[in-house]
Amino acid sequence: MKPITLTTDFGLEDWFVGTMKGVIQKIAPNALVIDLTHGILPGDVRAGTFVLAAAYRYFPTGTIHTVVVDPGVGGERAGVVIETENNFFVGPDNGVFSFALRGERLRSIHRLENPRFQLAEVSRTFHGRDIFAPAAAHLSRGVPAGQLGPRVHDLLQLEWPEPVAIKSGLRGEVVYIDHFGNCITNLPASRVLTSGATRVKIGAKSVPIHDCYSAVKPGKPVAVIGSTDLLEIAINGGNAAKSLKLKAGAKILLGTDDWHE
Amino acid sequence: MKPITLTTDFGLEDWFVGTMKGVIQKIAPNALVIDLTHGILPGDVRAGTFVLAAAYRYFPTGTIHTVVVDPGVGGERAGVVIETENNFFVGPDNGVFSFALRGERLRSIHRLENPRFQLAEVSRTFHGRDIFAPAAAHLSRGVPAGQLGPRVHDLLQLEWPEPVAIKSGLRGEVVYIDHFGNCITNLPASRVLTSGATRVKIGAKSVPIHDCYSAVKPGKPVAVIGSTDLLEIAINGGNAAKSLKLKAGAKILLGTDDWHE
Amino acid sequence: MKPITLTTDFGLEDWFVGTMKGVIQKIAPNALVIDLTHGILPGDVRAGTFVLAAAYRYFPTGTIHTVVVDPGVGGERAGVVIETENNFFVGPDNGVFSFALRGERLRSIHRLENPRFQLAEVSRTFHGRDIFAPAAAHLSRGVPAGQLGPRVHDLLQLEWPEPVAIKSGLRGEVVYIDHFGNCITNLPASRVLTSGATRVKIGAKSVPIHDCYSAVKPGKPVAVIGSTDLLEIAINGGNAAKSLKLKAGAKILLGTDDWHE
Repeated sequence: MKPITLTTDFGLEDWFVGTMKGVIQKIAPNALVIDLTHGILPGDVRAGTFVLAAAYRYFPTGTIHTVVVDPGVGGERAGVVIETENNFFVGPDNGVFSFALRGERLRSIHRLENPRFQLAEVSRTFHGRDIFAPAAAHLSRGVPAGQLGPRVHDLLQLEWPEPVAIKSGLRGEVVYIDHFGNCITNLPASRVLTSGATRVKIGAKSVPIHDCYSAVKPGKPVAVIGSTDLLEIAINGGNAAKSLKLKAGAKILLGTDDWHE
Repeated sequence: MKPITLTTDFGLEDWFVGTMKGVIQKIAPNALVIDLTHGILPGDVRAGTFVLAAAYRYFPTGTIHTVVVDPGVGGERAGVVIETENNFFVGPDNGVFSFALRGERLRSIHRLENPRFQLAEVSRTFHGRDIFAPAAAHLSRGVPAGQLGPRVHDLLQLEWPEPVAIKSGLRGEVVYIDHFGNCITNLPASRVLTSGATRVKIGAKSVPIHDCYSAVKPGKPVAVIGSTDLLEIAINGGNAAKSLKLKAGAKILLGTDDWHE
Repeated sequence: MKPITLTTDFGLEDWFVGTMKGVIQKIAPNALVIDLTHGILPGDVRAGTFVLAAAYRYFPTGTIHTVVVDPGVGGERAGVVIETENNFFVGPDNGVFSFALRGERLRSIHRLENPRFQLAEVSRTFHGRDIFAPAAAHLSRGVPAGQLGPRVHDLLQLEWPEPVAIKSGLRGEVVYIDHFGNCITNLPASRVLTSGATRVKIGAKSVPIHDCYSAVKPGKPVAVIGSTDLLEIAINGGNAAKSLKLKAGAKILLGTDDWHE
């Protein structure tokens, strides 16, 4: 049985996530199901693809990553299974696999249109239960992706926001804010290191780059290479997003101690 | 091993849910435990029974549905195991199984009074850990329900709020608000379809009935048949409960485009 | 395979917890992983050790309790595995095991410094993924604790706040506030019973001690022996922390009905 991960914007207050697991267990009684998160903000496809990209590599080869951040459920968008060299991805074709697929060799894409691998009744509002969970469960049992529906060759893609080299340094942006208020940027470790930068500028403030949070005193801001190999802005023991009033999309600039713009 | 589901108002901040799982694993080491939700509002028995009714059918036959929404813990109310044709239900006798039992053929009810199937020390505040988790675990291993305590013949019942036919149409109410702010009503698909209704009236507003959320523009209200086969009021890409200021109990009315009251 | 529990301050919004589980499954594919909680407030080591102490006894012997409340991650503090007569504990050496270890016979402590049992790349911000999850997974497979790194003999300890006998009675304090707003104190059942106390004084208010929440009318405050064998202050059907404005650290006093200070 291949393991299955679930990533959704369903929250944990209702029966949605548990019901998907019930459907999976009915079809694949011994399948291991791991929650990646169900706390994606409603409809935030961009956060969904970021989370998936940050995590999927840490799962066993052959894992079926099921992502249901699906504001278009019941409408025109297709449901798909994507097979890559190492993994399967199941969910809506709305860009939610984009960032993870940057690191994967694509094998095939199929639309989830074969009713044999769906629940007998398919609602217009909960394809997580009726289409995606059954697809993941059948894949887990070994059903080939090609049986789930017709092959297609395109996916909707979200573009990763590349950092931009400008005269005064390298410009990036905040792409994700985590539970601790750490502000993860689009600046990869390699670019930060080769830049020789020692500070990050955010608006009127400048934050030193260090090896770890505790290199600065409690309550002080610091930029570190985080666990996704991206530069992040934090406050030692605090919440950077709140204290520095940062949101996804906020622009930042790499520079040095003798910074003059 | 029969699977076990857990539905509680315990939240996920403390050790309550994890401890129930520890107790279960000690008794039934290979039991599969699936969280339905732990986000029922404290003591909201009505929400608990709605959630259970919406989900339990999607689990394998023989599943043990354990529900601990139990504001009367430690007091007079009994703990029970209910066996139906297809499932087991374990929890307090306070109405929390009412809506699920509407669709089940009852076999027996037993009080959880046999100390052999409880923890050695039973607290007055945490029967989830001391009584309900052990009962579920022993059932999962195959202990017959009849061994858990004396047979009884009555359960406290909560009444499902039936829609009411009035002169100007069919009157219903909001019965549950989900994570997305979708307002689920007590109007079943069958009644909506036979009524010929095309709109729902809520206070001074009227909302069109469509097939799916995206039938209206983003930000616009829409009523659809949801995944529990009940009419729900939503906003495409938005939160209907917040925007329309709806709460459980809010009255609604089915009508048509040429609506005159 | 020994079961693994996870207790963290990671929250459930991001990929952190799911990623730890992916790492564990890669190393120990059949390991059972149980979430104790991921809702410890960021960096609240004291709450972490309280939660662990309240729960760990309810898990099977040999369970590996992994606790990642780790504000000093990437800095000087060591990672450790602690073996006791009955359990393993894995996490940072910052006091987070203190309250649980009060009830355990210590066998050994080893630092998690053997790179063979870490991920190939170790970040400076996510030792839960890179060091603690791999350590727990290898222990689950049967790797002896002694192989994970050099033996040490000291741990940072947090002191349990003992109640203090004063002239007018026994003085304690609130040590933990749970999801329901119940305020758990440091007064054990044995001390409460031998004291003959019938009431608890909190600031200007006095609350009666009873057997269960429902011994008082809905909305009324009550003190009961809770499920951790500690006195707790509750409101029947309400939230005591909010209504009585109590926080961890709030002082309380045991007394009798004819209370005169």
